[in-house]
Amino acid sequence: MQLHDFPLSGNCYKVRLFLGLIGQRAELVHVDLPAGAQKRPEFLALNPRGQVPVLVDQDQPVADSQAILVYLARRHAAAWLPDDALQQAHIASWLSYAANEVHQGPATARVIRLFRRPGDLDGAQAKGRQVLELVNTHLAERDWLVGGQPSIADVAIYPYLAMAEEGGLSLAPYPHLQSWFARIRALPGYLELPRL
Amino acid sequence: MQLHDFPLSGNCYKVRLFLGLIGQRAELVHVDLPAGAQKRPEFLALNPRGQVPVLVDQDQPVADSQAILVYLARRHAAAWLPDDALQQAHIASWLSYAANEVHQGPATARVIRLFRRPGDLDGAQAKGRQVLELVNTHLAERDWLVGGQPSIADVAIYPYLAMAEEGGLSLAPYPHLQSWFARIRALPGYLELPRL
Repeated sequence: MQLHDFPLSGNCYKVRLFLGLIGQRAELVHVDLPAGAQKRPEFLALNPRGQVPVLVDQDQPVADSQAILVYLARRHAAAWLPDDALQQAHIASWLSYAANEVHQGPATARVIRLFRRPGDLDGAQAKGRQVLELVNTHLAERDWLVGGQPSIADVAIYPYLAMAEEGGLSLAPYPHLQSWFARIRALPGYLELPRL
Repeated sequence: MQLHDFPLSGNCYKVRLFLGLIGQRAELVHVDLPAGAQKRPEFLALNPRGQVPVLVDQDQPVADSQAILVYLARRHAAAWLPDDALQQAHIASWLSYAANEVHQGPATARVIRLFRRPGDLDGAQAKGRQVLELVNTHLAERDWLVGGQPSIADVAIYPYLAMAEEGGLSLAPYPHLQSWFARIRALPGYLELPRL
């Protein structure tokens, strides 16, 4: 497997983290985002959306960090994406939340602040606080986002929440988030968050 | 089953369309979005995100339109979400695209224009044109978004693309989209798009 990767991307980290947790390895192919490599024809042939990460397994590209988690779980680690219809639906709901609210909130605030991109920092931080609040409340009486064990939902939601301070969001008001972070960090194969 | 629904919502239509396509019925529970019913405590108990649609089956709520498609396919219509890891990953990738790019592009343009909400119409339309272009190109040599038959990916992506003109986006430049719309509209159980 090759993972087309950029080290500071939270979505790429998400995949590297999951590879670590399930004991799989992929060759990392560096995509030079600051130089615009993700918009060049050879990359667009792998992913027309022009985004990292892309996993290539047996010559088949899989784009989108959430989709890569689904792929790896189905191929190598079924316990992280149980067959039960209700659990799969709840996991899918968190994957949508990662693609929409988490992307528009803490992930966008981080990109604006850390990489000095143009954008509405106040708006992204306001959405970010809603996300932190909602997930913190959800975890008040649960150890994991779905069911009694870690799933790809936890892997999809963890990175940008754990890096929220890089977007100027305080994590201090959210004790249940912090306990959940500690549970994730104690999992065998855990990979440290990327740092500038 | 009950579907907590708002008739003009594209995400609610998405679920009603799929129920039609798989021959399932749900009792519709009207959620009065203009009156803010989705932010009241009794609704937030079903879905803390305060969004429609929510499907309730056997007293279990499932929120998020993509997650409801996953649930219904796993329970009632497995052919729409095949077991194969690569196909499931490609479907998951389109579900992320529905939650992120389609939401921020054609869906947001429609909400701003049709419901006179505040927002960046030009920005949403620009993202919308990128979405229409990308999906049109993807369908140039395919009948369906993933594999050789319709899947929940088609159901997730179709509604807001088919309603793009309500957001001020022309569909004229996209012949492959239009052929795909016609294929979807010819499926048994198809449900007409909502209209004001």
